[in-house]
This record gives sequence, C-alpha cells and structure tokens, in this order.
Amino acid sequence: MNYILFIGLIAGILTTISLLPQIIKTLKLKETRDISLLWCITIFTGIFLWVIYGFLIKDVPLIVANSVSLILVSIVLFLKLKFG
Amino acid sequence: MNYILFIGLIAGILTTISLLPQIIKTLKLKETRDISLLWCITIFTGIFLWVIYGFLIKDVPLIVANSVSLILVSIVLFLKLKFG
Repeated sequence: MNYILFIGLIAGILTTISLLPQIIKTLKLKETRDISLLWCITIFTGIFLWVIYGFLIKDVPLIVANSVSLILVSIVLFLKLKFG
Repeated sequence: MNYILFIGLIAGILTTISLLPQIIKTLKLKETRDISLLWCITIFTGIFLWVIYGFLIKDVPLIVANSVSLILVSIVLFLKLKFG
C-alpha cells in the first residue's frame, strides 16, 4: 500500500470512529431528544455526498470511510425518526 | 465550476456545518466536561490527516472543508485542554 492511501485510510478510520460515541449513546439510551433532526439530515446528506464524490473521483479512502460513516449516521437518523 | 467539484464542496460545507452545534454549545457554556479528551484528539487527528491527504492528492474540497473543520475542532480541543 502506498503511503498516501495509508494516510487517507487512517484519516477515514479516525473520523469514522469519532462518530461512535454519539451512535453508542443513542443506541444505549434509545433517546434522541438531544439530537436535532436538522443535524441528522445535514450530516447524513454531507456524508452521502462525500460517498458520491469519492466514487466520482475514484478515491478509495473517501468511499470506504464515508460509506461506513453513512451506515452509522443512518442508524441515528432512523432512531431519530422513530423516537422523535 | 464542474459538477464534481460542486458536489465535493457541498459535501464539505454540510459535514463542516454539522460540527457547529458542538462548537457553539461548547463556546456558549464554556463547559467541556461532557466531551472526552480522547474524542477531541481522535477527531482532531482524523481531520488533520484528511487535510494532509487532500494536499497529497491535490483535492480542493478535501483541503478546504477539512481546514475549516480543523479550525472548529481546534477551538473545542483548546477549550477542553483549558477547562478540562
């Protein structure tokens, strides 16, 4: 693996990991009142567009990291829509 | 502007905006007890590496979005180190 790809993947792993505390808290407490729907939609759309952008410029770290992040954020968005 | 660059920039604007509630809350309350230092360091390092990666692959949306995000996260990290 070349070092540029390596840096991109580490970057992606770290920013994806940084989403985990929110996801774990939300899953544990089944409590989404302190999360705004606008925030959920903003970050969901942003990460979704990073995935699209990753595919358009054919960039592996962008695609991989943001696809995983998108799954994590989808869980929060789903719980927010379910619990309000 | 070509449409690929446009999608990347919108992605970057949205994920950067999604950091704002945490920053505003932290600045307003001068209260960082509910933020973990490990989280601050993880997201700071992740975003820092995305900037580096952006420069290495010469990608404008990655550089611009993550540089702004890095400034925002630096504020939280600074306040966390200051207030504990």
